Amino acid sequence: MPSEQSAPLVAAFAGLGGQRVWSLMISLFGDLAQGNGDAIDGPVLSSIMAALDVRPEASRVALHRLRNDGWLQSHKVGRISQHSLTAQGRAESAAASPRIYAAPPDLSEPWQMVMTEENGRETDTALRASGFIPALPRAYVGRADSTAPKGCLALRGETPPDWLRRAVEPADLASEYDALLVALSTAENELTRVHHMDALGVAVLRCLIVHNWRRLVLKHPALPGGVIRPDWSGYQCHLLVDQLLHRYPQPALQDLAATSATG
Amino acid sequence: MPSEQSAPLVAAFAGLGGQRVWSLMISLFGDLAQGNGDAIDGPVLSSIMAALDVRPEASRVALHRLRNDGWLQSHKVGRISQHSLTAQGRAESAAASPRIYAAPPDLSEPWQMVMTEENGRETDTALRASGFIPALPRAYVGRADSTAPKGCLALRGETPPDWLRRAVEPADLASEYDALLVALSTAENELTRVHHMDALGVAVLRCLIVHNWRRLVLKHPALPGGVIRPDWSGYQCHLLVDQLLHRYPQPALQDLAATSATG
Repeated sequence: MPSEQSAPLVAAFAGLGGQRVWSLMISLFGDLAQGNGDAIDGPVLSSIMAALDVRPEASRVALHRLRNDGWLQSHKVGRISQHSLTAQGRAESAAASPRIYAAPPDLSEPWQMVMTEENGRETDTALRASGFIPALPRAYVGRADSTAPKGCLALRGETPPDWLRRAVEPADLASEYDALLVALSTAENELTRVHHMDALGVAVLRCLIVHNWRRLVLKHPALPGGVIRPDWSGYQCHLLVDQLLHRYPQPALQDLAATSATG
Repeated sequence: MPSEQSAPLVAAFAGLGGQRVWSLMISLFGDLAQGNGDAIDGPVLSSIMAALDVRPEASRVALHRLRNDGWLQSHKVGRISQHSLTAQGRAESAAASPRIYAAPPDLSEPWQMVMTEENGRETDTALRASGFIPALPRAYVGRADSTAPKGCLALRGETPPDWLRRAVEPADLASEYDALLVALSTAENELTRVHHMDALGVAVLRCLIVHNWRRLVLKHPALPGGVIRPDWSGYQCHLLVDQLLHRYPQPALQDLAATSATG
């Protein structure tokens, strides 16, 4: 059962879909306990998952699955279990973190247009692997410092027209970003009523934000700031995510343990 | 019958096709007598056309046609006819001259790539009318100082790869430019044997060059220097045309009249 403080926040994000418990748990460990040696006590994990409105059985199943998949490991210390990311889980979290926690791009960030000789699949694959975004037939948009494959024509970007800004937005995620923006705005609004939030509340809030943000942001290449449409909901989400994560920094694991013990 | 001096030059260009007499005559008047008040005496015109290997009847038919079309006018002055461009003919010649007599472009000349929102016919027409050359789907190459239609993305050109240089060359004129380059090189070679060329010979040579050059160059937009492939035969032709026209400048009409009188 979610805590009184967390309930309206959990509700704000509830309609977004993609709330598989094991995935939510990966977001939680990645945000709270990515450091080498970091571990979350069993009771703390139970409290957070309960606040996230996840039933205990569902949490146990997810924990089991993630241990089997090599993401998490559990150790008994005295009478309680301690759960932590495996080396592999830490590596995967670390690989995704720069993108998840990146500051919103400067909208004057330079970009480039790269044009290819042919519609070849090989060049297309190479360009996408380097973070280039298809914008027109045989033309890709990328950060100014990305290296284009040999034989391509690379031109420095100028202030782009609206249609180009829209062309590089991930069209298939448009409604999901719109929905996330509503959820984040609702949460931000709810938070204005909260005078003090304890470590557990912060952990829950951050997990909701990070989880729902990473589900979208990791599905498409980062747009160079210079081609971002300022009112694109993906960018507006980024601003809110960044603002909220800074306003509510990661709680220390000891503080969480204390909250849980007294809760 | 062509003069002894002109015969090998006429032969060099003979295989190029497009040698309609009225068209040849337009080239001749445009090169020799484009100024207001300029006129070519009947005997001079006859000598030049004869040197160009055109039969007198064919010349008369062409002259008749061009008078009917409003390009040329003829006046009797004493016993001889004087032929001149009409105001309209002069205007049309003047409109084509900047392109025909343009110096070869600097190969470092700046250029731009202009990209359009859609494959619309209207934008395509507007871009082509401004001298832009389609290079990729929805992307055009133009001179840096050309103005792109509103709503397009204009990017400053950088040193282009070979495939882009080839993409903007007029593919349908490739073999014709190759043939013209052979003709111009042959003529240039023949000219090394000529120690002095009289006014009539120069008029004939220039007519051959201007006529065969304008037939091709006016069929496609000018390529910005910065995207020209240095060994493109269209560019090599341009260099030779420019060089020969400077080495053999336009003869004065009085000198031509004198040559013809003594010939």
